[in-house]
Amino acid sequence: MKKQKLLIAVIGGHQCNAKVEQIAQEIGKKIAEVGAILVCGGLSGVMKAVSKGTKEAGGTTIGILPGENKKDANAYVDIAIPTGLGLARNTLVVRTADIIIALPGKYGTLSEIAFALNAGKTVLGIGAWNIKGVIKVKTPEGALRYINNKFIKKY
Amino acid sequence: MKKQKLLIAVIGGHQCNAKVEQIAQEIGKKIAEVGAILVCGGLSGVMKAVSKGTKEAGGTTIGILPGENKKDANAYVDIAIPTGLGLARNTLVVRTADIIIALPGKYGTLSEIAFALNAGKTVLGIGAWNIKGVIKVKTPEGALRYINNKFIKKY
Amino acid sequence: MKKQKLLIAVIGGHQCNAKVEQIAQEIGKKIAEVGAILVCGGLSGVMKAVSKGTKEAGGTTIGILPGENKKDANAYVDIAIPTGLGLARNTLVVRTADIIIALPGKYGTLSEIAFALNAGKTVLGIGAWNIKGVIKVKTPEGALRYINNKFIKKY
Amino acid sequence: MKKQKLLIAVIGGHQCNAKVEQIAQEIGKKIAEVGAILVCGGLSGVMKAVSKGTKEAGGTTIGILPGENKKDANAYVDIAIPTGLGLARNTLVVRTADIIIALPGKYGTLSEIAFALNAGKTVLGIGAWNIKGVIKVKTPEGALRYINNKFIKKY
Repeated sequence: MKKQKLLIAVIGGHQCNAKVEQIAQEIGKKIAEVGAILVCGGLSGVMKAVSKGTKEAGGTTIGILPGENKKDANAYVDIAIPTGLGLARNTLVVRTADIIIALPGKYGTLSEIAFALNAGKTVLGIGAWNIKGVIKVKTPEGALRYINNKFIKKY
Repeated sequence: MKKQKLLIAVIGGHQCNAKVEQIAQEIGKKIAEVGAILVCGGLSGVMKAVSKGTKEAGGTTIGILPGENKKDANAYVDIAIPTGLGLARNTLVVRTADIIIALPGKYGTLSEIAFALNAGKTVLGIGAWNIKGVIKVKTPEGALRYINNKFIKKY
Repeated sequence: MKKQKLLIAVIGGHQCNAKVEQIAQEIGKKIAEVGAILVCGGLSGVMKAVSKGTKEAGGTTIGILPGENKKDANAYVDIAIPTGLGLARNTLVVRTADIIIALPGKYGTLSEIAFALNAGKTVLGIGAWNIKGVIKVKTPEGALRYINNKFIKKY
Repeated sequence: MKKQKLLIAVIGGHQCNAKVEQIAQEIGKKIAEVGAILVCGGLSGVMKAVSKGTKEAGGTTIGILPGENKKDANAYVDIAIPTGLGLARNTLVVRTADIIIALPGKYGTLSEIAFALNAGKTVLGIGAWNIKGVIKVKTPEGALRYINNKFIKKY
């Protein structure tokens, strides 16, 4: 019998530019390296890039989908949760995660940041919505250093 | 057979100061006066003040509750919807409304603003979160004037 | 300040034959006559027939929809709640109601009966799924007589 | 890049007798042996016994919880999804699974059977609710033989 695994959510737009895509992929890789599981919305953009990063580094990825069909998940999702709840699934992405890393995104991402802060969870932001309570970090390394210090050492 | 009624959501903190309470109550009254139905989260603070305003002016109030028990609703709710969905009920408050008026609140209110803007709905703000896309108005009169011009005349 | 209204849910298939349609419409009428509010899934078949009955007798109807669009509601729904939750909205129909009347339907109706009994609510069945715990009645009159005796007199 | 994993849900009461517990544990073991992932409601009774079986055979377990707290999960859950959705989480257990195995349970289990059949999913029953559409099997071996023939060989 073992402890539950550490779950890190990465949130951000379903469209993103090349720079954000690279950051997302790098974060995904580091999540695998620290032995955590990635949880995300399972679709395109930031969600796909981070899933790719985690998978290619040998990690495990969970995609919590708004629709009813597992096939909606991007190709790097191991475990698809097709909620059928529409945008209300955003609350599940946040609740499932122990820590949230926010990248640039629109109002869907903002709703996840709000839910996470409301639930008292740690939200690290890299170029994300500038909301009071979000801890700004500059790089994937910075985000994972924070997580390592605050969560993994004591996990 | 008649058309569906116009539903106006008022969102804001479950705690509020006397000034915000007065604004909420005044908005509630005006919602009744234009013949719309109030939808809110059904609990305390802004939710209770606006419900009181609507009820005392003879209107109808809907409270979409996070819990499973109708008794959680404040005393001015006519129709209680006990969702049992926790914070995910915030998505329902927003979807049910044709227009949203936001007053001061914390992260729960922010999540509702984000969901509303994500769904392409009109959000009027009086002292609310300063998020791009929220239309700022200064008074209950200003909010209802906007609604009257844009929605009710053509409704 | 007044008490919350009594809400009666009527559940059943989104397709139904002429006989069931007539029963649904008759129940809808009686719900209006006792001063209760109808809650239903807001779509076609039993949901439409019962809404029609309630509206034509001057009552109020709530339709809790699976989709995100109020226009999905049948023409007799006053207050549409477009949940966007898919079938999970079935839990809301049941939670919102004080009493449930079940007519013939398929697995969606069965899920509502199960949720209602799980929540300890009274379920009256007219030709519905024969599940232990459902109270069988033979006619709309019988259903409303039961409701009148057990709920309305003491409400 | 690899395919999504096969997910098998096992549903049943949060209380169960020793015989059902043994059956659940045996099913859990076989789920691990065929390389599938177990999804369940994450709590006690059948959920705990099946999780134990899967974990002890080296498999992976997902618990989709009704509450907001991962600590509600039984000790054999690897990945806890704390939905905060109450009983509406039953819809997620079913949607997440590719196949559902039903053991004895009460109305919560019945709601899951109904949702699964409504979604057109395969439901195998061992001593479960006798609902039209449920495929009766007698033993854990029988259930897994069915799954192996119909799903895994072609998966």
